[in-house]
Amino acid sequence: MSQESENSSALKWTYFCGSHQGPWKVLGFRSILGNPIPFSSHLEILEAQTVSENKIWQLKGVSSHARYTTRPEKISLDAIQAPLGREEARFAALIPIKKSQKWWQMTQEERRHIFEEQSQHTSRSLKYLPEISRKLYHSRDLGEPFDFLTWFEFAPEHENMFNDLLVELRSSEEWKYVVREIDIRLEKT
Amino acid sequence: MSQESENSSALKWTYFCGSHQGPWKVLGFRSILGNPIPFSSHLEILEAQTVSENKIWQLKGVSSHARYTTRPEKISLDAIQAPLGREEARFAALIPIKKSQKWWQMTQEERRHIFEEQSQHTSRSLKYLPEISRKLYHSRDLGEPFDFLTWFEFAPEHENMFNDLLVELRSSEEWKYVVREIDIRLEKT
Repeated sequence: MSQESENSSALKWTYFCGSHQGPWKVLGFRSILGNPIPFSSHLEILEAQTVSENKIWQLKGVSSHARYTTRPEKISLDAIQAPLGREEARFAALIPIKKSQKWWQMTQEERRHIFEEQSQHTSRSLKYLPEISRKLYHSRDLGEPFDFLTWFEFAPEHENMFNDLLVELRSSEEWKYVVREIDIRLEKT
Repeated sequence: MSQESENSSALKWTYFCGSHQGPWKVLGFRSILGNPIPFSSHLEILEAQTVSENKIWQLKGVSSHARYTTRPEKISLDAIQAPLGREEARFAALIPIKKSQKWWQMTQEERRHIFEEQSQHTSRSLKYLPEISRKLYHSRDLGEPFDFLTWFEFAPEHENMFNDLLVELRSSEEWKYVVREIDIRLEKT
């Protein structure tokens, strides 16, 4: 095996900080399900943990390997999805999610069955690409209060489209296993 | 969804500390593949991070949900496996493992295919139960130098059986993706 593989740097965490100031201004802050988190007027995204006087809350996650995507799905996603950081994508959403113990006690193939065969998580989402860019951060193994931090970016004119995507996902079989969800809407300052 | 699920405590990390003293005495310390870690004469296992003067190295991991096991495999494993901490299981092994980028760039079903259909990881391991108890800790998403910390306990008379298990695993297709592996053998003091 190559030295390159062995020495590849360890995965890095991303820190989402609710704060009094920052590059993302909060447009909406809603607890959808379960305990809320404290309101913050702004959001900062940091690649290293810092102690900030502005910090009201902090959630961390890691962008890791895909857990459910099959090779054909990955090929479809890679072909159509747009990157983060597009100039026109001035709106964003941070949606932290926690799933139930029942979800995590299922086996991989039982979760996959609900995720895709019953809920069409990936195939439904494909309709909203490339307008909606997204990135998934895993938090559960980090001992965090949420299992996932989902991040979306889109142009203001695609906000309705994004809301449609959420309506679809939240009505799915998969979402019956969500026990905590916060919906934070943001605008680039 | 129940409050119980929402409020279930976050996953806790386990810290393996190579040290000058501790409840596990090192009988063997071998770098199988890739960069070594510093020799230590003892091992401590802690449920919370502590600053110890005895500490030579520290590796952390989280016991998380199963990634590959199917429901029938889980039923077989649960029916036959023995718990950790058995009085007669005075020997143990800590085997930290890192897999290649190529492994992690595969999709879940590609990894599962190599893990079980090609390598029979679970079905081969079943032969060695209940004599060999084991627990898997996930480290990759924690930003650690290894992806997994595998822990095994067995009675001294089953050491050869444990070595046979390792020979089987290390000759499997799955092990071609291992780029770093340390083999630390221990005795309870």
